[in-house]
Amino acid sequence: MNNAEQLSERAAHLDAVDPLARFRDRFVIKDSLIYLDGNSLGRLPKETAVRIHEVVETEWAEQLVLGWDSWLDSGTRIGDLLAPLMGADAGEVAVADQTSVNLYKLASAALAVGGRRNILTDSGNFPSDRYILGSIAEAAGGTLVVVPEDPSPADLDAALDATIGVVSLSHVSYRSGSMVDGAVVTNLVQRHGALMLWDLAHSVGAVPVDLASWNADLAVGCTYKYLNSGPGAPGFLYVRRDLQTELEQPITGWFGHADQFGFARDWDPAPDIRRFLVGTPPIISMKGVEVGVNLTAEAGIDAIRAKSIELSSLFIDALKPTLDLGVEIITPTDPNIRGSHVTIRHSKGFQVASALRQRGVIPDFRSPDLIRFGFAPMYTSYDETLEAASILTKILHTRSYEKFPETRSGVT
Amino acid sequence: MNNAEQLSERAAHLDAVDPLARFRDRFVIKDSLIYLDGNSLGRLPKETAVRIHEVVETEWAEQLVLGWDSWLDSGTRIGDLLAPLMGADAGEVAVADQTSVNLYKLASAALAVGGRRNILTDSGNFPSDRYILGSIAEAAGGTLVVVPEDPSPADLDAALDATIGVVSLSHVSYRSGSMVDGAVVTNLVQRHGALMLWDLAHSVGAVPVDLASWNADLAVGCTYKYLNSGPGAPGFLYVRRDLQTELEQPITGWFGHADQFGFARDWDPAPDIRRFLVGTPPIISMKGVEVGVNLTAEAGIDAIRAKSIELSSLFIDALKPTLDLGVEIITPTDPNIRGSHVTIRHSKGFQVASALRQRGVIPDFRSPDLIRFGFAPMYTSYDETLEAASILTKILHTRSYEKFPETRSGVT
Repeated sequence: MNNAEQLSERAAHLDAVDPLARFRDRFVIKDSLIYLDGNSLGRLPKETAVRIHEVVETEWAEQLVLGWDSWLDSGTRIGDLLAPLMGADAGEVAVADQTSVNLYKLASAALAVGGRRNILTDSGNFPSDRYILGSIAEAAGGTLVVVPEDPSPADLDAALDATIGVVSLSHVSYRSGSMVDGAVVTNLVQRHGALMLWDLAHSVGAVPVDLASWNADLAVGCTYKYLNSGPGAPGFLYVRRDLQTELEQPITGWFGHADQFGFARDWDPAPDIRRFLVGTPPIISMKGVEVGVNLTAEAGIDAIRAKSIELSSLFIDALKPTLDLGVEIITPTDPNIRGSHVTIRHSKGFQVASALRQRGVIPDFRSPDLIRFGFAPMYTSYDETLEAASILTKILHTRSYEKFPETRSGVT
Repeated sequence: MNNAEQLSERAAHLDAVDPLARFRDRFVIKDSLIYLDGNSLGRLPKETAVRIHEVVETEWAEQLVLGWDSWLDSGTRIGDLLAPLMGADAGEVAVADQTSVNLYKLASAALAVGGRRNILTDSGNFPSDRYILGSIAEAAGGTLVVVPEDPSPADLDAALDATIGVVSLSHVSYRSGSMVDGAVVTNLVQRHGALMLWDLAHSVGAVPVDLASWNADLAVGCTYKYLNSGPGAPGFLYVRRDLQTELEQPITGWFGHADQFGFARDWDPAPDIRRFLVGTPPIISMKGVEVGVNLTAEAGIDAIRAKSIELSSLFIDALKPTLDLGVEIITPTDPNIRGSHVTIRHSKGFQVASALRQRGVIPDFRSPDLIRFGFAPMYTSYDETLEAASILTKILHTRSYEKFPETRSGVT
C-alpha cells in the first residue's frame, strides 16, 4: 500500500468512527465546496435560520418594545452560556460589541490601574490588536513593545520589565496557527507584575481554553469563526471576577451603569461584568451567538479538539508531496502547540489560493504569501480534508495556478 | 359640534387625505395595538423580514466567506444611503457600532484637537451621553460642564468659554421632545471656538436635519427608532468632510486603516470617514438599517415631518381634558420646536403607563414620572392617535390606573 492509499484508508476509517459526523447535518450546506475557512466565517447552523426568523417575525414584530424584557440581558445571559467553553464562571463573560472594541475597553482599563505605561505584544498578533494596543500605550505616554512573532516563554521573560503594565497575545496565532501555553504565559506575565489580556478569537470553540486554571486576568474574542454565529456577530469579553470592580473601562455607556434605567446624574459602574458593556446590543445578530454557543457546547469541546487534531494531522501528512513544490508549512507539526488551522507559505500564494477556489476548495489567503486551511470539526470530514490536499498537490504539480491574477482584486 | 366631535372629524379628514397612509402596509402589523413607542423601537418593515432571510439563507449559507466581497463596505455604503436624510454628503456618514461607542469615538477625537479640556452638555441629555462625555472630559484632565435641561442659545452663550472644546447636545430631547435650532447652536458653539457634536437619535427619520446648512461638525445617532432598523441595530456617525483627516479617534481598529488587508505594522488611518470605523460590522443587523433607511427615503422626510406635526398637534389638542386630571404636557406646544414625540408628566406616571398598556396603547415610561408618546408617521394613523388620548382621558377620569403597581418590575 503506497502512501496515498494509506492516507485514504486512514481518512475512511476516521470518518467511519467519527463521533461528530452527525453534526454536519445541523448546518445548512447546499454546496459541494470543501469549506476550509470556518476559521474566518463559520457555516450557518440550521437552528440559527429558524431562531433568527423567530426573533424577527415573532419577537420584534409582535412583542415590539416589550421584547426588551427578554432581550435586555442578552449580553450577560449569552455570556453565561459561553463561559464554560473557556473555563470561566457565570458572571465572568459578556457578549458585546466587536472584538476590537472589547480589546480597547479591557486594555485601557488594565493599563490604567498599575501605574505602568507600556504594553507588550508580538509582531504576529492580529493587526487590529496591534494598532489598538499601540494607541492605548501612546495615549498613556508609553509605547507598544513588540517582540518577534510567536515568542516563547523565555522570549517573553526577557522582554518583560517594570514598565510593562499589560501583555496582550493571541492564544492561537491567526497567522501561524501556533498555540501558546495559557497557564505558563499568564503566570510569567503576572510574576512580572503585569496583567495578561488574551485574544481568543482562534481558540474558543476550537481548542480547550481553561481561563480558571490559567488564573487568566482578561480575554476577548469573536464568535463568527468556530462558534458559527454569523458574519460580524458580536464579540465577547472576559474579566476574572475579583478584577471586575478594580477595573474601570473608558466607554461608560448606560448598559454599564449600576442602575441602567435609574437615569441618575452621575456615572456609577455596575459592580460586576456589566460595567464592561456600553450600548444596546444588536439583538438579531446576538441570536446567532446564542445558537452557535449552544451547538458547540452540545458537540463538546473535547470531542471537537480531538477531531481537530486528527484533521490537521491528516492534512499535514497529506501535504508531504507539496513540500517539493514550493510549499513551506509554517504551522507547528506538534499538535499540542497548534490550533485548528494549518498555514502554508508559497511564493505564488494568492494565485494558488485562487486556483483552489476555482476547484471548489475554500481556504483563506493572508497577504503576502500565506494560505490558511481551517478545520471546523462539526462540519468538516476527513475525506474532504484529504481531497483538499490532493487538489492542492495537483494545482502545484501542473502549475495551473499560473493562469490566475497575481494580486487580489476583491477583499477575501 | 362639541370639541370631541371636532377632533374626531379632524382626525377622519386627515386620515382620508394622508399621503403616507399607504406606507402602513409596508410594515408587519399583526396586532391591534396603538403603538406609540416607535421612538424607542420602530416596527418591522416587511421587506426587512425578506432581506434578513436572504442574507442568512443565501448570502451567509451559500456565499460563505466570499460574502465579504459585498458585505465589507456595508458601513460606508449604508452610510451613503443615510446621508441625504440628514443633509450630509456621500462620504460623510458611516453606519457602525452603537450610538454610545460612536459618541465616544467622536467626542474623544474632537476634544483632542483643540487643546481645551472641558465638554459642555445639558442635564436633559441622554444618560449614556452624559456618562461618556463626563469620562472623556475627566480623562483629559477637564470636567463636564452641565447646563440645565433644554438650554436656549442665550443659556449656551452664557455658559461657553475658552475652556470648552466640545459641546454635545441632543437635537431633539429624549425627555421633553423639544427641538433646538441646529444652525443657530452650531454657529454659536463654533464662534466660541468649540466643536459641536449632535446626537440625532430622536431626529433622523422624524424631522428634517440639514447638517450641511448647519455647517455641523460632528453627529451620531441610532437607527432603531424612527428608521425602523430593528432592536439594537447599529448606530451611525457623521464627520464633516474637511474635519475627517484632522480628527483621530482612539479605537484604532483594522476597519479604520488606510489599507485594511495590507496588515502593515503601523497604524495609518484611512484618509476619509473609514477612519472612524473599528471592527467587523454585524451584517445581519446591518441589513435592517439598509431597508429602514431606504423605506424612510421613499416616504420622504418632508412628508414624514408634515404628518408628524399634524399627529402630535392633534394629540396635544386631544389632551386638553387631561390637564385637569393631573397631566402636565412638558413638550413644547409650538410644533416648530418639537420633535416627533409628546411627553406628559403625571405623579402616578408608571401606573398610568401600565393602564395604557393594558388597554392596548403602548407608550414609553421614563423614570420617575414621564410618559412619552411617539408618533411614527409611516404607520401611525390620526384615528389611533385620537383614540390613545381618549383612552388616557378615561383612565385618568376613572382612576383605573390605581390598581397597577406603583413601581416597575420589568425593564420597559
